[in-house]
Amino acid sequence: MSLEDIQKDVDKWVSQYKIGYYPPLAIIAQAAEELGELSREINNRYGPRIKKSDKDTADVGEEICDVIFAMICMANYHKINLDEFWKRKMDKCYGRDDNRWEKKE
Amino acid sequence: MSLEDIQKDVDKWVSQYKIGYYPPLAIIAQAAEELGELSREINNRYGPRIKKSDKDTADVGEEICDVIFAMICMANYHKINLDEFWKRKMDKCYGRDDNRWEKKE
Amino acid sequence: MSLEDIQKDVDKWVSQYKIGYYPPLAIIAQAAEELGELSREINNRYGPRIKKSDKDTADVGEEICDVIFAMICMANYHKINLDEFWKRKMDKCYGRDDNRWEKKE
Amino acid sequence: MSLEDIQKDVDKWVSQYKIGYYPPLAIIAQAAEELGELSREINNRYGPRIKKSDKDTADVGEEICDVIFAMICMANYHKINLDEFWKRKMDKCYGRDDNRWEKKE
Repeated sequence: MSLEDIQKDVDKWVSQYKIGYYPPLAIIAQAAEELGELSREINNRYGPRIKKSDKDTADVGEEICDVIFAMICMANYHKINLDEFWKRKMDKCYGRDDNRWEKKE
Repeated sequence: MSLEDIQKDVDKWVSQYKIGYYPPLAIIAQAAEELGELSREINNRYGPRIKKSDKDTADVGEEICDVIFAMICMANYHKINLDEFWKRKMDKCYGRDDNRWEKKE
Repeated sequence: MSLEDIQKDVDKWVSQYKIGYYPPLAIIAQAAEELGELSREINNRYGPRIKKSDKDTADVGEEICDVIFAMICMANYHKINLDEFWKRKMDKCYGRDDNRWEKKE
Repeated sequence: MSLEDIQKDVDKWVSQYKIGYYPPLAIIAQAAEELGELSREINNRYGPRIKKSDKDTADVGEEICDVIFAMICMANYHKINLDEFWKRKMDKCYGRDDNRWEKKE
């Protein structure tokens, strides 16, 4: 399990600065902004306004990490151990949601 | 570096099912839904419509993991190695964004 | 032109209360929450996790109005006359974006 | 009541084109993109990364109209009469939500 390392990465960087973490509502706005940028890229590739080559995956990877970064800030602000919650999420996937779709043979 | 483990967790679970990953635009809608749930919780805690105790961090951790889960699905769908992009993100933090805020003494 | 009437509707209701408009970052979180609810409904109808009948349009209409309500609050908070900006938006549609797609014969 | 006029504006413009309305999941992605742009502007003005003057309200008005435009497309796609749902929304405000906050004397 390993989201903890990512959380430490972010904390080390943020801790250098006087300002520290943004307040939670500003992190939400940040996350909405980043999800918006990912949405634009995905709409450009898969929506009706096709504009770009779908060869290059650089932007999608960057935009995904920008959203994850905002999520890590939110977790760190609240001193949340994400590995614990990730484990719970996976347990729920294999528990409650296990038979939600048809399995391969 | 370790987002790879999380990506494998998700892939192992999704690969059981015939349906596989959602199409990218459906993943965006999923991410918007999960970010919406996190937003409600954060607004309840920090916005003017204060309703809940801020002692319990359970819901915030769950909602964060739901958003991350959607991001991991988006990455896996595109066969993106997130550790690589996370490293780039951190390099950008220490590079371009290094002096964006005042540092502690 | 007529978004002004909608803006007045909202202002009349909000003005009854001591609290007044939410601060802008809380309105963003509210809008993200409402867009999330619309996203869930749309994903249920058109995404791979089809669950519901697509006959009933009640929920979609409600969720759309909830997003618009948040936008009206944001405009009113800033004393923005939306009819003016709507006119500009339409002018841009017929100007810059006029030949973005192929027209019907 | 008057969202109908706005709906007709959009329909007149969209109906010129062969492509017509985007599919609903693409409209969600469009709305997420536009809400993201509004979020950035609001975070710039009210969040900790203050960058801009708050005198000019032009961008906020434009971004709000971009979100509303996406909502109108979603309504038109579903042949929803928004005036009807807006009336319901207002009724709910004066009904269920009437005593949610303290009123002015």
